[in-house]
Amino acid sequence: MDDIFSKNEPFIIENVFFNDRNADIFIGGDGRIGSIGPGTAKKCSGDAAFSIDGKGALVLPGLVNTHTHAAMTLLRGYADDMPLQEWLADKIWPLEANLTGKDVYLGTKLACLEMIRSGTTAFNDMYFFMEDAARAVDEMGIRATLAYGFIDLFSEEKREHEIKATENMVKTIRAMNNPGIQPALGPHAIYTVSPEGLKWIAGYSAGEDLPIHIHLSETEKEVNDAVSQWKKRPAEILDECGVLGDRTIAAHCCWLNREECALLGKRGVHVSHNPVSNMKLAVNRAMPYHWLKEEGVNVCLGTDGCASNNNLDLFEEMKVAALLQKFSWNSQTLLPAGEALHMATTAGARALGLGTGSLTAGSPADLILVSRHTACNTPFHNPVSNLVYSCNGGAVETVVCNGRVLMHERVIPGEEKILAEASEAAFDLVKRTTQ
Amino acid sequence: MDDIFSKNEPFIIENVFFNDRNADIFIGGDGRIGSIGPGTAKKCSGDAAFSIDGKGALVLPGLVNTHTHAAMTLLRGYADDMPLQEWLADKIWPLEANLTGKDVYLGTKLACLEMIRSGTTAFNDMYFFMEDAARAVDEMGIRATLAYGFIDLFSEEKREHEIKATENMVKTIRAMNNPGIQPALGPHAIYTVSPEGLKWIAGYSAGEDLPIHIHLSETEKEVNDAVSQWKKRPAEILDECGVLGDRTIAAHCCWLNREECALLGKRGVHVSHNPVSNMKLAVNRAMPYHWLKEEGVNVCLGTDGCASNNNLDLFEEMKVAALLQKFSWNSQTLLPAGEALHMATTAGARALGLGTGSLTAGSPADLILVSRHTACNTPFHNPVSNLVYSCNGGAVETVVCNGRVLMHERVIPGEEKILAEASEAAFDLVKRTTQ
Repeated sequence: MDDIFSKNEPFIIENVFFNDRNADIFIGGDGRIGSIGPGTAKKCSGDAAFSIDGKGALVLPGLVNTHTHAAMTLLRGYADDMPLQEWLADKIWPLEANLTGKDVYLGTKLACLEMIRSGTTAFNDMYFFMEDAARAVDEMGIRATLAYGFIDLFSEEKREHEIKATENMVKTIRAMNNPGIQPALGPHAIYTVSPEGLKWIAGYSAGEDLPIHIHLSETEKEVNDAVSQWKKRPAEILDECGVLGDRTIAAHCCWLNREECALLGKRGVHVSHNPVSNMKLAVNRAMPYHWLKEEGVNVCLGTDGCASNNNLDLFEEMKVAALLQKFSWNSQTLLPAGEALHMATTAGARALGLGTGSLTAGSPADLILVSRHTACNTPFHNPVSNLVYSCNGGAVETVVCNGRVLMHERVIPGEEKILAEASEAAFDLVKRTTQ
Repeated sequence: MDDIFSKNEPFIIENVFFNDRNADIFIGGDGRIGSIGPGTAKKCSGDAAFSIDGKGALVLPGLVNTHTHAAMTLLRGYADDMPLQEWLADKIWPLEANLTGKDVYLGTKLACLEMIRSGTTAFNDMYFFMEDAARAVDEMGIRATLAYGFIDLFSEEKREHEIKATENMVKTIRAMNNPGIQPALGPHAIYTVSPEGLKWIAGYSAGEDLPIHIHLSETEKEVNDAVSQWKKRPAEILDECGVLGDRTIAAHCCWLNREECALLGKRGVHVSHNPVSNMKLAVNRAMPYHWLKEEGVNVCLGTDGCASNNNLDLFEEMKVAALLQKFSWNSQTLLPAGEALHMATTAGARALGLGTGSLTAGSPADLILVSRHTACNTPFHNPVSNLVYSCNGGAVETVVCNGRVLMHERVIPGEEKILAEASEAAFDLVKRTTQ
């Protein structure tokens, strides 16, 4: 089986379930879907270097994780169930202070492995040592939008440092020349980045056409502090600094009021909903999906980092999103399964500007096969309901990204080594920190 | 490998991770743990008919699902995201009106399969055609407490019918003579069973030493209707009818007030928390775990039926329970991982009076192996956190119930046939109903 992985050759996936009937997919050597539908295998077999058996699996676009801190996989389970400030100050920050580029490389490899296993083919990351993260992504073969976490703490000296670090990262990633990896700007949040820093980000983004990835209104404290200090709400502050536009992905957005939702809609901002993290950290309000939807905002889905989730399974995130919206806003019909699936696929791809997220001839071959021979897809009354409410990432059998097979029948080449090395790096990190 | 399944022979599981070190387990032909700890394999190898390799997996007690309607697997995905009354009246009830004993048999087999695959070795069921459910459970080899859903709708005629149906079920199940299957009484709820019916249940339970399985305070409407009609809250009504005692498992309990929590504590009632179902159906209040805990109530975990979940994975339920309690009651420290795991194992076993739920020599061999060679257990800072927050049921490799191997390396004999037959039964059921 080893010879099917990560090749730049045309191939066929036979026998999948697509648009309510059996179909095949021909994937060209250019990484795009050449043809999809009944009879494709017969028609294209002469052009294919190899073919794999889809076994009747559901095919859908690869999922897109629009907010995470990938290398935080190394912190998975290190600290939970603590008051937020204590958790950050006593546990998370001391560990992060000891992170090395190698840690981020190994943690990001583990994250990519986990995402591939659960059907994610692209992610939006914000962290440190992003050149090392990029190397990991490049080796793993999925797509990523990578931002250095820009934090100036309102100091001019720090700001100069962060600007240089950001510019260097952009240069390095562009030089890699991997079309699946794009640099982005990562101003952390209004309470960690000065207005001057935010304005620089806005200008640099416009000049270089770079996406912006930011945390917005995660906690009530963020809103209250902003209002008491600046007499403005968080989204207004960002807007004044020019940070809100259709290149921007704002994560969390739990405490937006109605006017802020309208503002985000007007500016074309994409919102990443992170329900698991928001519940685990008890932020006490769910993102107002109904308002954002009314304002036409493109709402997508993210897992956040493994310290506050503690996994990267977007299937789980779809379900919890649909549950949390219903429970929190007291509506049995809010965020139905189809909308949750849309958030994790098409909306995420749109937010990152990937051109993926739909399965048509000519679009990039980023797709996953979900087994139908499982309890979670039995019975098969409604595949979309099953995907969102019944299955988890373990039902994903095969993953193709940019026309390359990354997982087939749940096998990913090199998995054992990735697990072993990440495990060792995590233990060393704790040892260095607590000694 | 086929020859290791469901045998009544002594065997050894070598190389598991138990109490922070490597260990082996010897399981006797009586279905009990003979010995567990380092060196057990060497010591007991002469007495074992066969041995299996645990591959360093975490071993823990089999999970216990304390509230479900197993055969509702057939309705998985049939209807979701609808207003409650419409969902019940237009979708669920018409299908249930056409259910046959064979449907319940096949749906319960699918449910058992799904539970085994996700590490559940015992469940508490309430539904119809329970003799057929019992046959399915017997064939699948897990433990179950089975109650016929007693619904008299305040009619004497119906009550007589339900009493007979209940007595017949108890007789039939006792005659099966399977110590893993126990009959129970299933008065549906205060709004579907008359006080006379509840009193009969209480008396029959006391006389025959039978568990009681009931829905309690799932919705605000249940409370408001009770208060306006009877001037009493739901738990008070049950108490007056003698239904509250240490044989009773009350499911949901979302809308209990402080006094009702104290009453349940005083009576020794076990409470089954069903967070996924409660969120999906937007009941608008989470079970008050903090009050129940203060009152010393044994709180356990249940998935509810597949129409309102839509799976039976207790790993997912543990996570959502820990998330919902934190989010809903605004506390980052409420229901930590260790307590969630306790709810799904020891507390569940205690609620059903099984004698399982701990791994010590002499206790029944109901145990599961969770792989450590997975992303969800990498790194391994904290196994309990990983089990609750990171893993799902797919990390379960091997399941032993009552000393018999039911799944090994994710293989369950006969799986394909169970899936195919349940699938066919579900489609037939819809066809019969909607024609």
